[in-house]
Amino acid sequence: MHTERLYLYDTTLRDGQQTQGVQFSTAEKIQIAQALDQLGVDYIEGGWPGANPTDSAFFDAAPKTSARLTAFGMTKRSGRSAENDDVLAAVMNADTQAVCLVGKSHDYHVTHALGIPLEENVENIRASVAHVAAQGREALFDAEHFFDGYKDNPGYAIEVCRAALNAGARWVVLCDTNGGALPAEVSRIVSEVIAAGFPGDRLGIHTHNDTENAVACSLAAVNAGARQIQGTLNGLGERCGNANLTALIPTLLLKEPYASQFDIGVSNQALADLTRISRMLDDILNRVPSKQSAYVGASAFAHKAGLHASAILKDPTTYEHVDPASVGNARIIPMSNQAGQSNLRKRLAEAGLTVDQGDPALGHILDRIKLREADGYSYDTAQASFELLARDELGQLPAFFEVKRYKVTVERRKNKYNKMVSLSEAVVVVKVDGEKKLSVSESHDETGNDRGPVNALAKALSKDLGQYSRILDDMHLVDFKVRITQGGTEAVTRVIIDSEDGQGRRWSTVGVSANIVDASFEALLDAIQWKLVRDCGRQSAVAE
Amino acid sequence: MHTERLYLYDTTLRDGQQTQGVQFSTAEKIQIAQALDQLGVDYIEGGWPGANPTDSAFFDAAPKTSARLTAFGMTKRSGRSAENDDVLAAVMNADTQAVCLVGKSHDYHVTHALGIPLEENVENIRASVAHVAAQGREALFDAEHFFDGYKDNPGYAIEVCRAALNAGARWVVLCDTNGGALPAEVSRIVSEVIAAGFPGDRLGIHTHNDTENAVACSLAAVNAGARQIQGTLNGLGERCGNANLTALIPTLLLKEPYASQFDIGVSNQALADLTRISRMLDDILNRVPSKQSAYVGASAFAHKAGLHASAILKDPTTYEHVDPASVGNARIIPMSNQAGQSNLRKRLAEAGLTVDQGDPALGHILDRIKLREADGYSYDTAQASFELLARDELGQLPAFFEVKRYKVTVERRKNKYNKMVSLSEAVVVVKVDGEKKLSVSESHDETGNDRGPVNALAKALSKDLGQYSRILDDMHLVDFKVRITQGGTEAVTRVIIDSEDGQGRRWSTVGVSANIVDASFEALLDAIQWKLVRDCGRQSAVAE
Repeated sequence: MHTERLYLYDTTLRDGQQTQGVQFSTAEKIQIAQALDQLGVDYIEGGWPGANPTDSAFFDAAPKTSARLTAFGMTKRSGRSAENDDVLAAVMNADTQAVCLVGKSHDYHVTHALGIPLEENVENIRASVAHVAAQGREALFDAEHFFDGYKDNPGYAIEVCRAALNAGARWVVLCDTNGGALPAEVSRIVSEVIAAGFPGDRLGIHTHNDTENAVACSLAAVNAGARQIQGTLNGLGERCGNANLTALIPTLLLKEPYASQFDIGVSNQALADLTRISRMLDDILNRVPSKQSAYVGASAFAHKAGLHASAILKDPTTYEHVDPASVGNARIIPMSNQAGQSNLRKRLAEAGLTVDQGDPALGHILDRIKLREADGYSYDTAQASFELLARDELGQLPAFFEVKRYKVTVERRKNKYNKMVSLSEAVVVVKVDGEKKLSVSESHDETGNDRGPVNALAKALSKDLGQYSRILDDMHLVDFKVRITQGGTEAVTRVIIDSEDGQGRRWSTVGVSANIVDASFEALLDAIQWKLVRDCGRQSAVAE
Repeated sequence: MHTERLYLYDTTLRDGQQTQGVQFSTAEKIQIAQALDQLGVDYIEGGWPGANPTDSAFFDAAPKTSARLTAFGMTKRSGRSAENDDVLAAVMNADTQAVCLVGKSHDYHVTHALGIPLEENVENIRASVAHVAAQGREALFDAEHFFDGYKDNPGYAIEVCRAALNAGARWVVLCDTNGGALPAEVSRIVSEVIAAGFPGDRLGIHTHNDTENAVACSLAAVNAGARQIQGTLNGLGERCGNANLTALIPTLLLKEPYASQFDIGVSNQALADLTRISRMLDDILNRVPSKQSAYVGASAFAHKAGLHASAILKDPTTYEHVDPASVGNARIIPMSNQAGQSNLRKRLAEAGLTVDQGDPALGHILDRIKLREADGYSYDTAQASFELLARDELGQLPAFFEVKRYKVTVERRKNKYNKMVSLSEAVVVVKVDGEKKLSVSESHDETGNDRGPVNALAKALSKDLGQYSRILDDMHLVDFKVRITQGGTEAVTRVIIDSEDGQGRRWSTVGVSANIVDASFEALLDAIQWKLVRDCGRQSAVAE
């Protein structure tokens, strides 16, 4: 089959960070870059080095990727050479394979926002792109406000793009910066640009979702001949977000004419990881994943209508446009108790628990989950807590130890240097192997900083658990998420704790209480119990 | 100006109710129908009478509307006449002006899901539509799976539609039931249907958002000649939702070619109510409104990038595709580490703080925000904490009181009934008006349940603040968000607290610490101080 290469340029770490309320840490940026690389995008725009400390730190610590890591910045300012522009220098100093510079292509913005002559703007762009190329880097040019500019003054908008191309830009990216262009306009304008002699395989498209058409505008540009798409995971981005790669990638890979026409960097195997990656990003942002997201939403393959659900059982293609497994998602038939049980058996099998079809325990487990969910628990991500609940119902959960009581104190006062300091202390009383054990811990880390009550509790709890203490040595908390949610008629706190051990296992547990410390303690207990189940085996000694 | 009529058909109350987790009460349906009518849609599909009790109750109690209230149902089944089909009779009995019946137009579904000959399906549709028309009702026909059907067997798909049209259907609605059709396909197929002699002003379009193209597919159909759009408010609907009327309506009214070409039932005045209606629906569903929604999202006109923010201040059209006021929304220029001084002055002005351009305090405030953001703080949403930081830098923050120390204890143990219970207690020591005050509180609510350490601290802190206690009486916590983030090189906890008072004010504050209790206490302190600034005025007595 004859295919053309279509390139994916991810800007989750740059334009995605323009989302209101989003501020990635360096560690989070690294985690996202690695996921993007595994997914198979061609470019990862990491940020604007020099514009803020986190972006600079990310480039210093950037992971090795197959994708081209790209630094973003703006073209040089007037009145200095590209070599002597300190803002541009900071971008170049990030030392990335590719550099993407933004410049203005709308005449109105040149004269009114920059306040410089139109020709001077063209020269700034030319010189900046030439500078990047001369350093042996791949140069990309983001033509800001291209579509609005083209509508007002097509000649100037194209002149700007041609200057960047001739100066050595690998890609000229047509940006709908304000997000107001509609698909039919994008289609017409990209066609005209190509008809004017601009090579389509040097053209990219960058759209925003201000009219809910960012995905469609991207497809329209590709239909018209553009060969690079810029977008973000989960459609993050300034205002209403950028073109959503999480929606675009499956369409390009699974649907015609794209599937036959194009070769993209994402494999079908990597695509099956898309739902997980999308949820991971929401986890990092502590956002509730949108249920209705195309392809990856929890409701994307949920068939609520009775007519749909019964037809689906005969033949899934009757009401599904793609196979949910292709994007790592799953079918949900909420109304059907039968489907509930087969779903449950599948999930239990994933935890290594085989339960026969028709076993009454399945109904009991579903009932307990329903009751708990009404109380504010959520087992979507807390797979380890789900497993413990099921094991308990199946009589496969050893009682390793029993917590008799705990007490945690947080105090804040002036120290002897008259500086306010805080101190957390926890006392935990457990009974293990018939023996009562009292443990006390402070939560100070190596540098003497207080890490808070949950940390103190975790330390005290694992300090002396008799024969089990040794097993918990390689375990530690890696994340902690808190959400206020509804439990019955009251607001309660839901805590999700992610733990990790020396064997590279990572597991999530949940606790719910009106008291945040108590909810944390419950999640902590589950985390420890899951680890003991894994490392002691089922035949382990059972405490009294 | 010569304009054509374009019709809007809302199915929030029917297909919108297919959203996972959505079940409207009759009263809610009435409230939504009234809002839709004020907005100016042409048709309100109220539900399927007879299919569920709430839908039947809604039609019995339906409000008087200018919009045509429409009952939904399916065409008659085989083996009985339209007059003798009890399911169809229940739909007719709702006694609405218009009746919309769904039937199959994909041959595969007729033979495999219905299991009847193709001709029998055509006859069922013909007879059902003729029955509706004969009763003097306006008849609409939803051609289920039309686009998939047309791709497999165009002749049959068109034959079905023509049968409905000839039987008296005012509208034949082409449905992309599975949501898999892409805009270019919809454009081509609708054009071909019209080229085959089908009148465009009798054609409607019904799309789903499974590829995030529902809005674009609707526009593509209109571009090709269809003249009715079916959709829902906020894009509710089965799986990923229906075409989002909240995004489509402003585009049709404000943007070319639609604004000049078409006349729709929604006025510019009604459009200014769109954001309110969208939020009202979220309120009814107890959903957090999506910030990134096109036109109506809280972030839709939020300008985070520093370069954007400074240009916006010169001329809003530089980075806004429409005026936010046109849809009842508002511009936001959040604080972030990418913000510039002009952005900052605007933000300060909103807090009632006038600072001259070039005032060195601006630089100091920006520096402090940058340092704090590097420590894990975020001021995008925590506007009240931002204001306090600025006031402090400007010497406009009275020192109402001083916290000397606090101590909070959480204990969990068995009570006298051998049941595990928890108890939180807080002691706070403050100095106010030169006087030292010790307060202690437990966190139990009215029902005796422990609400946790933050609640105990909040109670103890506001218990005795001398002259200020009275002011804090009408203030309470409404939300509490926690996330782990990076502060320098360490993981820290960021707490955002939303507070509310009796005057309807709502404000957000932020605290950051490795210790979650300490972070909460900081956010709590800010919340109280902001309230005191508002209600004591700047000339208030300043504590020592």
